[in-house]
Amino acid sequence: MIIMKAEATKEEIAQVVHEIKKFGLRADVSKGESRTVIGLVGDERKIPFSHFETLPGVKEVIRIETPYKLINREYTKFLENGDGTMEVTIGDVKIGGKEPVFIAGPCAVESREQLFRIAGEAKKAGAHILRGGVFKPRSSVHSFQGLGSAGDDEAREALTWMREAGREFGMPTITEVRGEAQVDLVAEYVDIIQIGARNMYDQDLLCKAAQTGKPIVYKRHFGAGIEEFLSFAEYIAAEGNKNIILCERGILPIGKGKTYTRYTLDLSAVPVIQKETYLPVIVDPSHATGRRDLIMSMSCAAIAAGASGLMIETHYNPKESLVDSQQMITPDELKVVIDTCKSIHKHLAPGVKSKAKVA
Amino acid sequence: MIIMKAEATKEEIAQVVHEIKKFGLRADVSKGESRTVIGLVGDERKIPFSHFETLPGVKEVIRIETPYKLINREYTKFLENGDGTMEVTIGDVKIGGKEPVFIAGPCAVESREQLFRIAGEAKKAGAHILRGGVFKPRSSVHSFQGLGSAGDDEAREALTWMREAGREFGMPTITEVRGEAQVDLVAEYVDIIQIGARNMYDQDLLCKAAQTGKPIVYKRHFGAGIEEFLSFAEYIAAEGNKNIILCERGILPIGKGKTYTRYTLDLSAVPVIQKETYLPVIVDPSHATGRRDLIMSMSCAAIAAGASGLMIETHYNPKESLVDSQQMITPDELKVVIDTCKSIHKHLAPGVKSKAKVA
Amino acid sequence: MIIMKAEATKEEIAQVVHEIKKFGLRADVSKGESRTVIGLVGDERKIPFSHFETLPGVKEVIRIETPYKLINREYTKFLENGDGTMEVTIGDVKIGGKEPVFIAGPCAVESREQLFRIAGEAKKAGAHILRGGVFKPRSSVHSFQGLGSAGDDEAREALTWMREAGREFGMPTITEVRGEAQVDLVAEYVDIIQIGARNMYDQDLLCKAAQTGKPIVYKRHFGAGIEEFLSFAEYIAAEGNKNIILCERGILPIGKGKTYTRYTLDLSAVPVIQKETYLPVIVDPSHATGRRDLIMSMSCAAIAAGASGLMIETHYNPKESLVDSQQMITPDELKVVIDTCKSIHKHLAPGVKSKAKVA
Amino acid sequence: MIIMKAEATKEEIAQVVHEIKKFGLRADVSKGESRTVIGLVGDERKIPFSHFETLPGVKEVIRIETPYKLINREYTKFLENGDGTMEVTIGDVKIGGKEPVFIAGPCAVESREQLFRIAGEAKKAGAHILRGGVFKPRSSVHSFQGLGSAGDDEAREALTWMREAGREFGMPTITEVRGEAQVDLVAEYVDIIQIGARNMYDQDLLCKAAQTGKPIVYKRHFGAGIEEFLSFAEYIAAEGNKNIILCERGILPIGKGKTYTRYTLDLSAVPVIQKETYLPVIVDPSHATGRRDLIMSMSCAAIAAGASGLMIETHYNPKESLVDSQQMITPDELKVVIDTCKSIHKHLAPGVKSKAKVA
Repeated sequence: MIIMKAEATKEEIAQVVHEIKKFGLRADVSKGESRTVIGLVGDERKIPFSHFETLPGVKEVIRIETPYKLINREYTKFLENGDGTMEVTIGDVKIGGKEPVFIAGPCAVESREQLFRIAGEAKKAGAHILRGGVFKPRSSVHSFQGLGSAGDDEAREALTWMREAGREFGMPTITEVRGEAQVDLVAEYVDIIQIGARNMYDQDLLCKAAQTGKPIVYKRHFGAGIEEFLSFAEYIAAEGNKNIILCERGILPIGKGKTYTRYTLDLSAVPVIQKETYLPVIVDPSHATGRRDLIMSMSCAAIAAGASGLMIETHYNPKESLVDSQQMITPDELKVVIDTCKSIHKHLAPGVKSKAKVA
Repeated sequence: MIIMKAEATKEEIAQVVHEIKKFGLRADVSKGESRTVIGLVGDERKIPFSHFETLPGVKEVIRIETPYKLINREYTKFLENGDGTMEVTIGDVKIGGKEPVFIAGPCAVESREQLFRIAGEAKKAGAHILRGGVFKPRSSVHSFQGLGSAGDDEAREALTWMREAGREFGMPTITEVRGEAQVDLVAEYVDIIQIGARNMYDQDLLCKAAQTGKPIVYKRHFGAGIEEFLSFAEYIAAEGNKNIILCERGILPIGKGKTYTRYTLDLSAVPVIQKETYLPVIVDPSHATGRRDLIMSMSCAAIAAGASGLMIETHYNPKESLVDSQQMITPDELKVVIDTCKSIHKHLAPGVKSKAKVA
Repeated sequence: MIIMKAEATKEEIAQVVHEIKKFGLRADVSKGESRTVIGLVGDERKIPFSHFETLPGVKEVIRIETPYKLINREYTKFLENGDGTMEVTIGDVKIGGKEPVFIAGPCAVESREQLFRIAGEAKKAGAHILRGGVFKPRSSVHSFQGLGSAGDDEAREALTWMREAGREFGMPTITEVRGEAQVDLVAEYVDIIQIGARNMYDQDLLCKAAQTGKPIVYKRHFGAGIEEFLSFAEYIAAEGNKNIILCERGILPIGKGKTYTRYTLDLSAVPVIQKETYLPVIVDPSHATGRRDLIMSMSCAAIAAGASGLMIETHYNPKESLVDSQQMITPDELKVVIDTCKSIHKHLAPGVKSKAKVA
Repeated sequence: MIIMKAEATKEEIAQVVHEIKKFGLRADVSKGESRTVIGLVGDERKIPFSHFETLPGVKEVIRIETPYKLINREYTKFLENGDGTMEVTIGDVKIGGKEPVFIAGPCAVESREQLFRIAGEAKKAGAHILRGGVFKPRSSVHSFQGLGSAGDDEAREALTWMREAGREFGMPTITEVRGEAQVDLVAEYVDIIQIGARNMYDQDLLCKAAQTGKPIVYKRHFGAGIEEFLSFAEYIAAEGNKNIILCERGILPIGKGKTYTRYTLDLSAVPVIQKETYLPVIVDPSHATGRRDLIMSMSCAAIAAGASGLMIETHYNPKESLVDSQQMITPDELKVVIDTCKSIHKHLAPGVKSKAKVA
């Protein structure tokens, strides 16, 4: 990480970038109001740091020891206006800002009518962003894979509904990509790209999604430690895309015998990640628990732990849902969850609430 | 589980118990205001249920399929006044009642002065119960094992301080037993016996502690599934002691790389266990996280998840503590945690709050 | 699974396939010497099984309850010559046959010279197949990602070396694909495609690799249960490609404290998978342990557990290796490992050795 | 660890011990043929190492950084005859010597007749040591807890059968203790005390069992890392009892979905532990897999990994067994397992075989 002087010129910045490239690395340039920070992408051992300290316009060269450098909280600290956190802005919605954000919608888009009805009801319940799966990652090839898997036309049709529903109800939209071939298509229609837990380690997909420039909701794999999660998130940042929203959605349950939830929600991951990076962290209680009757308590707990938002699966008639019907809540239930979460958020100590804008 | 008629006589109850013993099992008798339920302890397969249905005074015979039967929520449902939950009462303090309960104190009792100072300050901060370790389970034989391990006299002296500090500040006391040989001694001095995570599977210790009749705070092992935790809690109940407070204190972290917390707090265990049993559930964020800077957020999250109380390690000067100094908070910090938790608790939806009295 | 009569005609088979498609599913046709079995790909609940039983040429309709159906051992049982196992044949090499197969080579291809030297020495040590990474999945974007990541030309050059080294020393070759964009390129140059542990869940990549028709070495993710591993392997089979070699390479270590190996080799997975499917199972002790000094003992253990082969990283000078230098063994050490393993294999009880040819 | 000079006198050794005690620690004295090594038990930070270096007779003072010091391989290295391994000798049987040792018998002792029949048949099959459970740790209070739990007389009777069967067939005997109250009783009747996986963390039980001076088979808990396992084994050594046989019996399975084995046998633990300590390591494939049909392959794998022995549950009629009937093998099967294992052991490379005598 190379911190430029406040008075560094464009040419001086360009020279540093040029030198970095000469050593076979890439440069990541972040401009604050009065200062610029340049991160390195690639094997730092190749770099003679002392050389860079002598370049004109360079104030300081700092090594970040964690494998996640570009998303490390240290990184923004040197931007004069930085408090070490960042908002991701999508239209009117700010994730990581002063208020928690609620993402809701069906697990899978099943029809135009289904989607519009849920979108309208979720909006009324207080949701800010509309989710809906078009390409569904499934653990069995014999299960329904989402409308998107039926063919290109079907995918475009379902994505069009997403776009239209988003516009109709004034909600930015999010859908998941499962493979590289879907990235450009999805980026054409929705506002936020989701990369699911099962694709967390899929570095080629991360790069391709990052290159669209769209904000990315990036979910932690259920077998991934936090260091590994952040190290892979770095692949997105290394493409120059820092509009990353990290999402905790449950880790593998421990122990013998019956498991009462699909996964085990790891809520201490929320404050831990907030202390390690400047990125906002949200929580998905639906996939974590897999149980409608636990959504309320785990939503409250997530907000109380400091999460910047929640992603909750919603359906007017959960039993009808083709996928994950056991974890859907109704829009009426969603409203109670959102209202309770907001009221909890108000009573949190300042240090727990997600912090204000950075850059 | 044998449900007696409301009008069943003492003799009829005694006969059922007698018959159960004839088959080599033990009987667990629970009396509600107007009805009695009798649970079986032992291998039910030996029992001809149809025979019991014909005994005088018997209303119904029901099989509970889970390995935890006596602490199963089903068990209290048939007591007419039961809402399926139970309070554990220790003096003026009710765990599992309308208000969350806070247990605080040092990890290890180190001196009379240290204990009294912390007890007084914790009380002022809002704590209800005083904790303090005399026999410390440690993962290394080369570490400080608590004053109790120095000898009988030292153990008695430290336990006397606990009793005196409890009386001085009007707080019930709790300390841990680590082996069977300590049970009677500890029971003589403190109000609540703690069985720690590492002893969770130690069934002979569970039975011995249960036989004292004292309330027991029973901690989940970090490698134990919920079913296993409850199955072992059943050993306590089977001794006729249902004053059990279950405590979640973290499971093994998942994944490769650095672990940012000592354990991973499993907060969905709180509502899950509440749905499975009538016992109150508390949370220990200190051992779960091992980090002072996470106590606030995880305490809030635990209360928001519905926990009936918290157990928090406190020290006026954390750095001085001989054990676990990194996870202690000061009494001033404790006060903020307690106040914030109470305010969150007030705003929870009714279904999340711990329920009212059973029996 | 639809079992056709021995005398069923081509037309009758075609009709069954046609009917399956009418219900929106795909058909997987396996021909034995005198009988044909047709598997279904998709949601079986849509299928009226009783209808299929009445079609001409159909002998029996059987439901397989596991989520892996096409690779289930049940599936081959009905092919008259089936003993429930299958060999995968690549040139002269048979994986899953009477003798264990050894795959060796460098972790990453670094130069033509490095590859040729290792290939020659591995061949002399007794290895049958040459491995070499061109696209390396890495947990940090700041680490060396393999020559393939430097650009298309570099990728083609490294792959050409693989092809040439394979021909020079008479060894089929294997390399890993990390993303969909690499599949066609890799398939052009090497004999076997590897899908690594981190991509195990990447169903779109699985399908694309399967469509090349090449044999696939498919590695279990370190957080995946066996059922999940086999359910995802089914994605490959569902594309009509059953030349699948399953590879165990370690699961997440358990417990607190220092981890002495990179992962924990799960050797009971070998016989378990052999009992569940007809596919051959191999073991990668290099990535599982990450320790040169454990390769010998874990290789012996894997063969003794019944593995059909081993994949071992080899380098003439481990310290020079750009990737995974701590787990490389020298060709001399490889020779001792191979010889010992062969001698152990000879003394195994018949039931433990991998079984003979199926189809 | 204090290494005495070869010519150090008794008095000089006594003085070192005396000085250690003055600092509040205990001393562990190991005598080799011509040299003595003194280990410290307790918090080393209290010790001024430089002071000890100046005491007469002291050659060198070395700090061992691992939490297991007295069982660390470093510890024996300084005994002139040490190759860093140790045999545990029980009568004619040596565990950790040149040949693998086989421990067999029923899971639970059920009757004199059952025990004698199994003992005789196991002996004929090649087993060296007789196992049989009298006090059974069970995860449900409603399950059969072993004859020992029926009362003192029943316990003594079952233990008498063990002693008699051992004498009758010339086999040392082993049984498990589950609580402190059983230790003295069990030590009176059997040759080896077993501490089961669920009691691994029960430090008070470890100390009490160690104090009997009997050899101890100590099983790893299914949630314990290797460092933790060895750290707790140190509690036994710290009582002056180094006749410890470590036993791997499976860790928690990973991943979602069906588990095909009770636990996951961690065979790389065998060579890892052998490199860390001088203690012999054995494997229990019965409890690890819970499946009769996997005993053969996992026994072979364990021996190939370098295990010094196996503990296998045996019953002439597995279905009759009151406990663990699914994992028992018959004496005939046991004979094939033992013979195959011996033949594999002969073909292992010297480095994999368990090493020769130390002290």
